[in-house]
Amino acid sequence: MIQIKGSMMSVREDVKVLDATLRDGGLVNDFYFSDDFVRALYRMNLAAGVDFMEFGYRADKKQFDVNKFGKWKFAEDDDIRAIVGDNDTNMKISVMADVGRCDYKNSIRPKSESPVDLFRIATYINTMPEAVAMIEDAAQKGYETTCNIMAVSKCQERDLTIALDMLSKSPVKAVYVVDSYGALYPIQIRDIVNFYAEGLAESGKLVGIHAHNNQQCAFANTIEAMSVGASMMDGTVMGMGRGAGNCSLEGLLGFLKNPKYDISPVLSFIEDYMLQLREDGSVWGYDIPYLLTGLTDQHPRSAIAAVQENNRHYLDFYNEIWD
Amino acid sequence: MIQIKGSMMSVREDVKVLDATLRDGGLVNDFYFSDDFVRALYRMNLAAGVDFMEFGYRADKKQFDVNKFGKWKFAEDDDIRAIVGDNDTNMKISVMADVGRCDYKNSIRPKSESPVDLFRIATYINTMPEAVAMIEDAAQKGYETTCNIMAVSKCQERDLTIALDMLSKSPVKAVYVVDSYGALYPIQIRDIVNFYAEGLAESGKLVGIHAHNNQQCAFANTIEAMSVGASMMDGTVMGMGRGAGNCSLEGLLGFLKNPKYDISPVLSFIEDYMLQLREDGSVWGYDIPYLLTGLTDQHPRSAIAAVQENNRHYLDFYNEIWD
Repeated sequence: MIQIKGSMMSVREDVKVLDATLRDGGLVNDFYFSDDFVRALYRMNLAAGVDFMEFGYRADKKQFDVNKFGKWKFAEDDDIRAIVGDNDTNMKISVMADVGRCDYKNSIRPKSESPVDLFRIATYINTMPEAVAMIEDAAQKGYETTCNIMAVSKCQERDLTIALDMLSKSPVKAVYVVDSYGALYPIQIRDIVNFYAEGLAESGKLVGIHAHNNQQCAFANTIEAMSVGASMMDGTVMGMGRGAGNCSLEGLLGFLKNPKYDISPVLSFIEDYMLQLREDGSVWGYDIPYLLTGLTDQHPRSAIAAVQENNRHYLDFYNEIWD
Repeated sequence: MIQIKGSMMSVREDVKVLDATLRDGGLVNDFYFSDDFVRALYRMNLAAGVDFMEFGYRADKKQFDVNKFGKWKFAEDDDIRAIVGDNDTNMKISVMADVGRCDYKNSIRPKSESPVDLFRIATYINTMPEAVAMIEDAAQKGYETTCNIMAVSKCQERDLTIALDMLSKSPVKAVYVVDSYGALYPIQIRDIVNFYAEGLAESGKLVGIHAHNNQQCAFANTIEAMSVGASMMDGTVMGMGRGAGNCSLEGLLGFLKNPKYDISPVLSFIEDYMLQLREDGSVWGYDIPYLLTGLTDQHPRSAIAAVQENNRHYLDFYNEIWD
């Protein structure tokens, strides 16, 4: 039995939308977005009533060659400020920091020196202690934080229980269900969101959802997570994101009943900017190889390679990854 | 509160899969499938463990010019028999007959003269009396029948209540929830399937689901319908179907836990036949205009035209259909 929160006719005031186009979409084009694109996306999100815009990763320049990635891989304060100024708006700015890939002690400056509001700490379940250390560091510097537990379809319930307990005692604001492999169906997403909500209830932490579209469930999983209580919802324009991509921002805003959201600026942005990205060679979105890695609960890297190589031997591919 | 039937770990023995590729996919290419394609699809469905294969519409040749459509628009007994012989298999053959578009009294022959097992009677809610007459006619001739109530997103509950009562008293085997406009979300599909199941419970009729992918919910809606008790599931290979298309057969077979189903023949068929259809110019599948007609609960014809014309003025399109 599932308890549904809200209805098709009601507004869930607790729901917040985060646009992750630059961050998850950056995995498609190595973060080479033009400044013009980023400025237009920022204006689009403001006009659409989006609550958070994510500018990319705060990756460690000692680990990643700045000549091989666009600047949003590193999402530095100055680069963000060049787009948003002081961001004197109601929309908050987020940046993702991966455990083990971010020199957070040095590269995350005090909030008073940064346009960033929220750091989202991305971690696999086994590096939770370092994630908590990063959360505490960022909170102490004055930021809001979330914890994005990746590849939740691979997590053991006993480990998740401990992780949620650790996070309950941390200053984190929300914990995300991240279906990195696009492996989960709505029935499972509802169970996992319930599990998170129960584990976090006493501490008052929120639940977030970040879905992938391998099995064409990214949008459905996002709104189903919401229906059982998740309130931080990730979308990207046209679902742009690694492999099969994400929940589309336009689908999500179209679904939400809060009159503060407006799909129209997103439609204009698609016309004016996204179609060009596709024409320039960026490839993302549902395809058979992604279905197959999703179905078998695997990292999409083999599927991404198959799509890039235009390998259409689907049965051979399935037999290889299933082996 | 929703009662979930079965689990991710269990087999629902009552569930049957129907491949509607020739029928809904025929709306994409005016039913011009080669005999080679149809034979291979038949073999594929047998190998994949599919329960029903639909061969097309039994359209009235007095209404539709046989020179403007392939033969599966008319799905005559002899044409089906040329593919399946006596169909001495466990898979049943279905044909769809639209209210008002099928000269059923003459063109549906007694079952003893036909390879068809099941006639699916498609109707809008307002022509239910004629649908019941067709159901009775086909049943009396020895066929199984279903009733596919189209555009359920537009149906009034009070009318549906009466329709389900009429169908309960008819010889129909199952009644389908048909989301013709791809307008519905999982939360709504569950409600509607529940509503059907309750209305049909006493009579023992089954519930079916036929979904469209306008909002990328066709697969999710199909498995969610199943989770609350629907047992007749429509899929098409690669989701081939009008506009945004349908629930993909490969996704559905991948999801189902019954070991009788096998996704592998479908993957081979996609490689060998479906990719060629696409290369030859057949266009279907999710695109922004379909999202917008789905969101506004409209027939997809304007979206189909926009996609065909390669009209990418999405905001103008949205404003026009929303007017």
